Amino acid sequence: MRPEIVGQRSETVRRANLSAIVRALHAQGPLSRSELVAQTGLTRSAIRGLVGELAAHGVVSERPPAPLGVPGRPSPLVRVSSDRVVVLALDIAVDSIAVALVGLGGQVLDVERVDRPSGHLAVDDTVADLAELTARIRARQPAAEDPIGIGVAVVGVVRRTDGLVSIAPNLGWRDVPLGERIARGFGTRVPIWVANDADLGALAEHRRGAAIGWDQVLFICGDVGVGGGLIVDGEPLTGTAGYGGEVGHIPVNPTGAACRCGSAGCWETEVGVGMLLERAGHPPGGHREQVAAVLDEARAGSQTALGALDETGRWLGFGLAGLVNVFNPELIVLGGLFAEIHPFVARTVEGELDRLALAAPRQLVSVVPSILEADAPLLGAAELAFEPFLFDPARWLRVDGGRRLASA
Amino acid sequence: MRPEIVGQRSETVRRANLSAIVRALHAQGPLSRSELVAQTGLTRSAIRGLVGELAAHGVVSERPPAPLGVPGRPSPLVRVSSDRVVVLALDIAVDSIAVALVGLGGQVLDVERVDRPSGHLAVDDTVADLAELTARIRARQPAAEDPIGIGVAVVGVVRRTDGLVSIAPNLGWRDVPLGERIARGFGTRVPIWVANDADLGALAEHRRGAAIGWDQVLFICGDVGVGGGLIVDGEPLTGTAGYGGEVGHIPVNPTGAACRCGSAGCWETEVGVGMLLERAGHPPGGHREQVAAVLDEARAGSQTALGALDETGRWLGFGLAGLVNVFNPELIVLGGLFAEIHPFVARTVEGELDRLALAAPRQLVSVVPSILEADAPLLGAAELAFEPFLFDPARWLRVDGGRRLASA
Repeated sequence: MRPEIVGQRSETVRRANLSAIVRALHAQGPLSRSELVAQTGLTRSAIRGLVGELAAHGVVSERPPAPLGVPGRPSPLVRVSSDRVVVLALDIAVDSIAVALVGLGGQVLDVERVDRPSGHLAVDDTVADLAELTARIRARQPAAEDPIGIGVAVVGVVRRTDGLVSIAPNLGWRDVPLGERIARGFGTRVPIWVANDADLGALAEHRRGAAIGWDQVLFICGDVGVGGGLIVDGEPLTGTAGYGGEVGHIPVNPTGAACRCGSAGCWETEVGVGMLLERAGHPPGGHREQVAAVLDEARAGSQTALGALDETGRWLGFGLAGLVNVFNPELIVLGGLFAEIHPFVARTVEGELDRLALAAPRQLVSVVPSILEADAPLLGAAELAFEPFLFDPARWLRVDGGRRLASA
Repeated sequence: MRPEIVGQRSETVRRANLSAIVRALHAQGPLSRSELVAQTGLTRSAIRGLVGELAAHGVVSERPPAPLGVPGRPSPLVRVSSDRVVVLALDIAVDSIAVALVGLGGQVLDVERVDRPSGHLAVDDTVADLAELTARIRARQPAAEDPIGIGVAVVGVVRRTDGLVSIAPNLGWRDVPLGERIARGFGTRVPIWVANDADLGALAEHRRGAAIGWDQVLFICGDVGVGGGLIVDGEPLTGTAGYGGEVGHIPVNPTGAACRCGSAGCWETEVGVGMLLERAGHPPGGHREQVAAVLDEARAGSQTALGALDETGRWLGFGLAGLVNVFNPELIVLGGLFAEIHPFVARTVEGELDRLALAAPRQLVSVVPSILEADAPLLGAAELAFEPFLFDPARWLRVDGGRRLASA
């Protein structure tokens, strides 16, 4: 029961109904008109009119499904035209960048990811690299329409309203107006939406991955740092300015080590890659290969490696217990490092949840590894860029009339 | 932008529009039709029709405002009839219980609070005491309509769906079907809604107290235990089953003391009343007077008392820093013990937030004491009981036709 102070004029209703249809098709794939009636609660005649309108603009099409060899005429399926409404998704990760062209319905039309040395990288170089990847993809996809928007995932603390990266310790960035810099670097005027990579990972796992159908979800992603994203009542939690979800910086250890954020004893100092390597007696840096080496040692029975994993699992459970008590989630999705080490730490994590979380919320929560893995933030960035269209397809149909507002 | 998969039939629209009008009047008090047009976004003619319908059922009335001595005829104000739609609010606190009769618009028609010894109390005795207070109030208010619902605040971990109290350490309760027990004890069939006291405190501060107009709010209330309630995007965060907001049981100290919840090192073991008294060299128990004594000693310059308050303030800031990073709230409202000690700990708390929270969300958050004080959960319980009516006034008008569904 959500408070609604704003009433419903007829144009608001039309917007909401078009939105309901497009959202259902975008999320679930092709549906018959009857299924759309059931899903949206609209009448059959309303569905007919609205689907016709969307079809006239090329946003959806109606075709019979593939024959199943059963008698009777199968009802046609309404499906989105994935090459008609297209977005560009960018991901700036610790040691790679990626670009994808994604069509309505979530279809990845093309994608490029390239590794980069981790460490402090100039913003303009990063933007130039992303622009080059984008140009390569667009050259390969001449049939795709111009993107209607750009979604950007970045491993940093981001203000949603204007795409300011407040701090990105892994990149050495502070107060970078990333949305603006990308607009300039790409020479585009399409809307650009920037968000924290873990927030977008949560969104992607919710729409397309391990958390489909769950309404209360905590996604945490381990790497050098630890990011988190929350789905509350089916919606991403952003907080006042989009800074929400920074679970890696919950203070958990009053006597803990200094954190890259300037604080000390943050959760990520105990569960990040650095501490795992230290506990396992490995040198810092070069973390992806080093983590693989620790896991190999653990598989070979090394007590040091197993002990290091176990200690990381205990701290993982320690922090998760508090989040279970605060959020009462149904599902915790572990991404990145935590997905990799999951087979080794699952039992310890579950044990710490039993020991430290309140019994009632603890009984309702399951812990699973990510499905989308490293692509979660990229796919979440695409979802973010689709959001204005999904919210108000009518406006796009009206203003745009089928042509893009500008080119990306 | 909230996803809407469900479309809008015409009856849904009517419900939403009546809801928008009643919510605006309930939250803000009397408004002119022009103000309702501005608030709800509905047309003038829609407002006229819907207000007329509500007035015909006696839910609202239109009267001219008190004359201000200015020329011209002032426009009449639409106001809710606070004696027409009434709820009963109950509060089961650590050392007191309370009952209030509250009218639409939030007007407290009558209230009774009685102290009780803290400690383990039988459920049936508590319910009988509440029933007695209720009978006393109803006898004093013969003109008030029968309540349309009962809201219950309880100092425990509560499942919203059915009012099961999973655990209430202060009362010694575990797995108590409180909603059911109250229905039986009161001999009533009106809907009963049970929730955690701090969750309802947050709701009340948001609708009627320190957090009016803020959309991202963290309310924390200190006592023997520590409760929390969250407002996210203007809505209460409940989590999967209503267990959300249990911030008192975030593990913050890996080497901390045993907690009454069965875990150890929970935040409330460091910031609850018990530890403050221990730090100040006071005996445990009898906490309300003891806290007053510690504050007196601090005012008189006692270094022990000031040191104890400062240490509590440091732990308060330690936990709040994590919550600021996770929720990115605009406002933190301190209730109970934390409101009392606020003048002594404000500087330390702010300093710890500066030191431990991420700069970006930290800059956006203010910390203020509660306005509603001890009555916050009771007033929140009333809001909870109004919620079904506010969500769908049309259903009430239709089904009830002006008579109560049953008597409380």
